[in-house]
Amino acid sequence: MTVRSFVDLAVEGVRDLAPYQAGKPISELQRELGIQDIIKLASNENPLGPSPEALKVLRGQLEDLALYPDGNGFGLKDALAKYHGVNPKQITLGSGSDHILELAARVFLGPGRSAVISRYGFAIYNIVAKAACAELRIAEANAPDHPTQPYGHNLDNMLAMIDDSTRMVFIANPNNPTGTWLSRAEMQRFLDAVPREVVVLVDEAYVDYVHEPDYPDCSQWLERYPNLVVTRTFSKAYGLAGLRVGYALANPEITDLLNRVRLAFNPNLLAQSAAVAALADRDHIARTVELNDEGLSEMAAAYAELGLKFIPSVCNFYTVDFGRPAMPIFDALLKEGVIVRPVANYGMPNHLRISIGTQAENRRLVTALRKVLG
Amino acid sequence: MTVRSFVDLAVEGVRDLAPYQAGKPISELQRELGIQDIIKLASNENPLGPSPEALKVLRGQLEDLALYPDGNGFGLKDALAKYHGVNPKQITLGSGSDHILELAARVFLGPGRSAVISRYGFAIYNIVAKAACAELRIAEANAPDHPTQPYGHNLDNMLAMIDDSTRMVFIANPNNPTGTWLSRAEMQRFLDAVPREVVVLVDEAYVDYVHEPDYPDCSQWLERYPNLVVTRTFSKAYGLAGLRVGYALANPEITDLLNRVRLAFNPNLLAQSAAVAALADRDHIARTVELNDEGLSEMAAAYAELGLKFIPSVCNFYTVDFGRPAMPIFDALLKEGVIVRPVANYGMPNHLRISIGTQAENRRLVTALRKVLG
Repeated sequence: MTVRSFVDLAVEGVRDLAPYQAGKPISELQRELGIQDIIKLASNENPLGPSPEALKVLRGQLEDLALYPDGNGFGLKDALAKYHGVNPKQITLGSGSDHILELAARVFLGPGRSAVISRYGFAIYNIVAKAACAELRIAEANAPDHPTQPYGHNLDNMLAMIDDSTRMVFIANPNNPTGTWLSRAEMQRFLDAVPREVVVLVDEAYVDYVHEPDYPDCSQWLERYPNLVVTRTFSKAYGLAGLRVGYALANPEITDLLNRVRLAFNPNLLAQSAAVAALADRDHIARTVELNDEGLSEMAAAYAELGLKFIPSVCNFYTVDFGRPAMPIFDALLKEGVIVRPVANYGMPNHLRISIGTQAENRRLVTALRKVLG
Repeated sequence: MTVRSFVDLAVEGVRDLAPYQAGKPISELQRELGIQDIIKLASNENPLGPSPEALKVLRGQLEDLALYPDGNGFGLKDALAKYHGVNPKQITLGSGSDHILELAARVFLGPGRSAVISRYGFAIYNIVAKAACAELRIAEANAPDHPTQPYGHNLDNMLAMIDDSTRMVFIANPNNPTGTWLSRAEMQRFLDAVPREVVVLVDEAYVDYVHEPDYPDCSQWLERYPNLVVTRTFSKAYGLAGLRVGYALANPEITDLLNRVRLAFNPNLLAQSAAVAALADRDHIARTVELNDEGLSEMAAAYAELGLKFIPSVCNFYTVDFGRPAMPIFDALLKEGVIVRPVANYGMPNHLRISIGTQAENRRLVTALRKVLG
């Protein structure tokens, strides 16, 4: 090839961009180690699977797959509008909430603009902001010895990084991979202080698992803060990660902008129908949350018994501190057929993030950990 | 709201961006007019539906939907690599080929860069280039009275618009919504003349329908032209539009760049498995193409009998010239329960694009046209 490299021809933000590292798929471990009977506790998926009601709808719709999805997502927006008490004009649908994060970055970020995120914040914020060629400002998080929210977002630090070039702030509440959360009072103080020209995206992917009375459902605050975008997903408690459905709630003007850059046919046909059914199946969500609550208690006790520290979590995972480089432990667990998640890319080389599974999966994990830790 | 408008806060390309107008979904027409028994010939979908082999795979995989898709798409890339005789490192997967067009634009376009497209070229090129804040250069197409390819791409005109700022050219071969195509000699001459710093994206969404011996399968030319990106889709002949699967073939360096901005979980879990099964089911493709060939002949005769001109097409649609504003005809057909596609947004206000359906659908269309045209 006689030309200069195509990397040099890419836009600036892409030139040194590293893609997101997903949890290892079961099929990949099967291929690599030739083992069967693998459990995956790496991606905070719902161990109960999707709602049976959603599966029923899907079975009835497979024959329609040659048809394009409804680009306006009428049925799903209608269901979400009723669920949240908002206007459909305030809803943006996407292929997972990561897709919504990307849409927002493409609308509001660009060269000469900056985005503020927190250290230990969800990795996709970094990627979508960089891909949009924006400057990334990473606010220091709470210290590891913070009494209640170690590694959690520090909103004062985030606020201090906002200036005239700042167009977006990304906040995860609760946050992945830390499992920490921000209170109503903290969020409100922050939103009151942020200039209205800065879009604040609050990612509530794990909202369904949270019981804390002081946890704020920011979707209630859309009237008050026109610069607020709240994202939700069907990939966690709703158990539809494989189908890719997420959405944003925001004021109609921001919603219109997000939809301008959204290609028409997201989410896909099955995803839209399954999400409607999953949203309606509150029993499945209740069972899911109950199982998770039990798992959180059980695993908190198990980690304590193993002498392992972990970050207190309101989500469906714990991020566990092994007090030494965690990659060898990750590798050893793989050999036991247990996939968990390294978080070295978050600057946490001694931690592993481990999802709450079914009771059987949790116990198998504990057995594997005992063996691996010796 | 006391702030300046959020539109003003958007990046430049988004400020006056109009989203893609998709074909009207059947459910929307049902809601609007309260009619049942609707046929949709608006989106060039496969009237035979998806491959029965793909449906079989899907039925077996619904229970897995709580799991994230394999972000690397191992199985589908492996199948495509064998099918095309390329390395998996040359394959980028996306949620439909429109997603791939967007990825390419986000990597190679941006402020101060230009993209060259053809008048009457597929509408998404325009949208993804503008959303990336690039300058859009629209080359004049063949005249309506061109002897063989009216409204078709004119590659000499496109070449003449390339300068130092140009980073991408989008070519559809064959093109939607015109159904026209470019010959091997034309494409080769063009690719030989384009500077290697300009990425040429050749969109082959309709490749499976084309029989012309001089039609070039550009996926064979990847070695020769390192700046070539060829896109394909499972939304047309493969009958999987509802699941969203497309892919690009390109050199490994470009492929790496496209994958940097691709969020990990596209295409979705079901889409990846269904596509593998659909790719292998060559019988279904053969039946699909045979039905389309018959439909093209039948409808060519029918339009002639109705006194309607149409653009010669190698695809699964005809774009029909009604010789007067076509929107009233579109609306009248809706009332007959027949959805077709206006192309006024392409600067073709007198045309409608009408997909080839099953024989029954084609005949119902002809009956409706007879009634509507009086």
